[in-house]
Amino acid sequence: MLPGYASETGPQSFVPAETAIKTPAVLDIVPVLRVLGVLIIAFAGVMLIPVVVEASPLNPPASHFILSAIATAFAGMALVALSPAKDGFEMTRRQGFLLTALSWTILPAFGGLPFLGHGLNISEAYFEAVSAMTTTGSTVFTGLDLAPASILLWRSLMQWIGGVGIIVVGIIMMPFLRVGGMQLFHTESSDTSEKIVAKAFDLAIWIAGIYFALTMMAVATFHVLGMGWFDAINHAMTALSTGGFSTHDASFGYFNSEPLLWAGFVFMAAGALPFVAFIRLAQGNTKSFFSDSQLRAFLGFIVLASMLVAATRSVRGQVPFEEALTQSAFSVMSIVTTTGFVCTDYQLWGPFAYGAFYVFTFVGGCSGSTAGGIKIYRFQIISKLAGAHLSRIISPNRIHVTLYNDRRVEDDVAFSIVAFLAVMLFSLVASTFLLAWFGVDLLTALTASATAMANVGPGLGPIIGPAGNFDPLPDAADWVLSFMMILGRLEFFTIFVLFTPAFWRS
Amino acid sequence: MLPGYASETGPQSFVPAETAIKTPAVLDIVPVLRVLGVLIIAFAGVMLIPVVVEASPLNPPASHFILSAIATAFAGMALVALSPAKDGFEMTRRQGFLLTALSWTILPAFGGLPFLGHGLNISEAYFEAVSAMTTTGSTVFTGLDLAPASILLWRSLMQWIGGVGIIVVGIIMMPFLRVGGMQLFHTESSDTSEKIVAKAFDLAIWIAGIYFALTMMAVATFHVLGMGWFDAINHAMTALSTGGFSTHDASFGYFNSEPLLWAGFVFMAAGALPFVAFIRLAQGNTKSFFSDSQLRAFLGFIVLASMLVAATRSVRGQVPFEEALTQSAFSVMSIVTTTGFVCTDYQLWGPFAYGAFYVFTFVGGCSGSTAGGIKIYRFQIISKLAGAHLSRIISPNRIHVTLYNDRRVEDDVAFSIVAFLAVMLFSLVASTFLLAWFGVDLLTALTASATAMANVGPGLGPIIGPAGNFDPLPDAADWVLSFMMILGRLEFFTIFVLFTPAFWRS
Repeated sequence: MLPGYASETGPQSFVPAETAIKTPAVLDIVPVLRVLGVLIIAFAGVMLIPVVVEASPLNPPASHFILSAIATAFAGMALVALSPAKDGFEMTRRQGFLLTALSWTILPAFGGLPFLGHGLNISEAYFEAVSAMTTTGSTVFTGLDLAPASILLWRSLMQWIGGVGIIVVGIIMMPFLRVGGMQLFHTESSDTSEKIVAKAFDLAIWIAGIYFALTMMAVATFHVLGMGWFDAINHAMTALSTGGFSTHDASFGYFNSEPLLWAGFVFMAAGALPFVAFIRLAQGNTKSFFSDSQLRAFLGFIVLASMLVAATRSVRGQVPFEEALTQSAFSVMSIVTTTGFVCTDYQLWGPFAYGAFYVFTFVGGCSGSTAGGIKIYRFQIISKLAGAHLSRIISPNRIHVTLYNDRRVEDDVAFSIVAFLAVMLFSLVASTFLLAWFGVDLLTALTASATAMANVGPGLGPIIGPAGNFDPLPDAADWVLSFMMILGRLEFFTIFVLFTPAFWRS
Repeated sequence: MLPGYASETGPQSFVPAETAIKTPAVLDIVPVLRVLGVLIIAFAGVMLIPVVVEASPLNPPASHFILSAIATAFAGMALVALSPAKDGFEMTRRQGFLLTALSWTILPAFGGLPFLGHGLNISEAYFEAVSAMTTTGSTVFTGLDLAPASILLWRSLMQWIGGVGIIVVGIIMMPFLRVGGMQLFHTESSDTSEKIVAKAFDLAIWIAGIYFALTMMAVATFHVLGMGWFDAINHAMTALSTGGFSTHDASFGYFNSEPLLWAGFVFMAAGALPFVAFIRLAQGNTKSFFSDSQLRAFLGFIVLASMLVAATRSVRGQVPFEEALTQSAFSVMSIVTTTGFVCTDYQLWGPFAYGAFYVFTFVGGCSGSTAGGIKIYRFQIISKLAGAHLSRIISPNRIHVTLYNDRRVEDDVAFSIVAFLAVMLFSLVASTFLLAWFGVDLLTALTASATAMANVGPGLGPIIGPAGNFDPLPDAADWVLSFMMILGRLEFFTIFVLFTPAFWRS
């Protein structure tokens, strides 16, 4: 693994050991608000980009973006002004949690402003912006084909920013925050053989550079295979971020092109692979790229699942295997990577596929990627633990060590994964009941909760299925699902710790 | 906890330390087959009991029971004759697994014989017998009100035997076999303050005695409250075993009596409480009965869930709260204890209740009871682990110890619970897909798999819901569900170890 950027107390850590251990009596939120203010100002700048695709900046919707950007910038500057700088930038573990949680709840509140001028109410605008920034891809918009270019571009831009944001959080913050087994990706400061990036800032630059390069490759590929520039740029951003917003109601189905489906397949995969592996690859270490255990398991699963779904559909005489394979590979990749692009309504592929796609909702991509879900490495570790349990039952007196990527799985990791799955199931049940309480039917409530929590996008059923959208749901449901999207994106505990009194005092 | 009956290497263990550690090169199955033969002969004896409720032993169905008993006894004697006795009775861990697994797969094969003369084919007869012996309570019979008394009594008897069998396995074998976190109920041989039962055989006598006494109390109560003797005996046996077979298609709804519903409530609860607590109570230790953490959590959950379901149903104006509470308390207890008695079709209580009853399917009773499901103590430990994970995130440098019933939860227990949940979810998904493959609709496939695995009884939907039965399912589904019932009853790993090569050699 990459050394030195996430080890909590090691000498090469980006957080000096003394600050990580230091726990002040009451949490100092001033530096957190200052950084948040800076982020909001930068966000206001990005909000001006959609103006360029409209004819005149003085008429709606372009003028809505300008007004929204001014309001956002003003709010950010006020926050910075009210939070005086202190000597040196120190961020403790708890401040890191707070900043992460605030970024994913506050930024979408500003990001939704331009939608208010486009027929959405406050609940819907926040839902749409949260869906974008968490790279979920559920939408309340209908008639995308007729929507203004600036609105479409803004949705894609927010997904793209949310995508790179979550990679940075996933690689730099999460292991340090020990959330849900992510400490497994802590690095050993003793491992200096491939000491490629010594500081978190350098690492963030690497991540952003590779993310940008992959997006450019996607734009070029999509354009060469037949998309116009505008569609190519939008779909490139939403494929790499595994967000899945499209510029057409029919999503990828609109283009009706097999090569484009395969290109989409490749770039969704790119968004869901561990970015640490890409950094290694960019530095010429191809061997360690292809030997990454998580990457291999992920690709193996995709191949197997695609073949199985295509085979069942083909055997039952609906379509020739080749066509079935293209569509099932694209759809499986789209759901497993939590992207949510659609090429055709897979609800019509029979009960086997129907059930399979519900299960796929939970799988997710690799750690340190833009994908959500439970994530491949958790499944790998759980199956290793189950295997170890079997051996322990048979030979209780032997010593059993569980390894993952040649590192020992500590007890702490197993505990974290139990805790992660427990709160996930609990949240799923609670959200389903809340939606049912608001009058949503059970299938929609269950699959809307699951798709929000896993940051996938489409649910199942006639309302929110791949052919529908989230517009018919009541406003109260929008808020529940917005909360579930943020909860799932930040792996639950980043949010839950904020509700413990112990978090706020020593 | 009770000392000395399950501690694996302690001096008071029923298995001498040297045999537990001794692992012969190849598993010696001869003593296992000999014990199984004895069990089969005893089972043949029980099979003669239903004959007494028929007018003539020479006509069907009584004659079918006599023929089945003769065939069963013959098979048992052949097995004993072919498995010569050795000096002293020694049972190793692995022989214990094999005996447990064989008992729950082979005995139902004989138990289903009398059904063959009553219109069931082999798949259905085995399904019905497995459903009985695992105390699941799903049935393929229709027209119970017109069925011969001997057939009804035999179904109830098998549940009653299966119930006491699983308590013995749960208290004596499982902790010793370390299955799915059950090692938590290992006893400390140093704790001699309440050394009440020193040997497994004594413990088994205690269990059987209390089980019998509770059943007699249930018979008397049901009869006093209005059931005929035959109905009272049958329902007492199937309430205590949390099996849920009835003598009427309308189940408890047939009697249309609120006092009987509350009596049923009490005796289902009795079947789902930890039997170790009853043994303590029978010995006058009331304090430790009421302070049992699992017992309190179980009863608290029942009260809360019943109130919630009754309140939602009442608020929506369907029925007065008192009537709603009786019905919801009975139904919640029936599903949570995995009994499966029905007083009215709770599918008509709205989407909230509908969803709640699906979730309740998984909850289950206490460890060392007749109930199935995930079981209360696993939820308690999982929430403790989730809480500990939160504290660890906030204060990583503090030492966190998780306690349960004043005992430390060892890492091994956490691992076992992850493993248990993982194989449970995997089995659920695999079974659902298999049933969907055989043409069963998705709701039926999912809830049939869940209800079988958790040993509950009814599923959801028009076919296998509380108002339906399992007769319409294809034969292939009967076999899948029979396997799932056995898997769930024996907590998965007891079966899965048999499929590992390591189990059969050293």
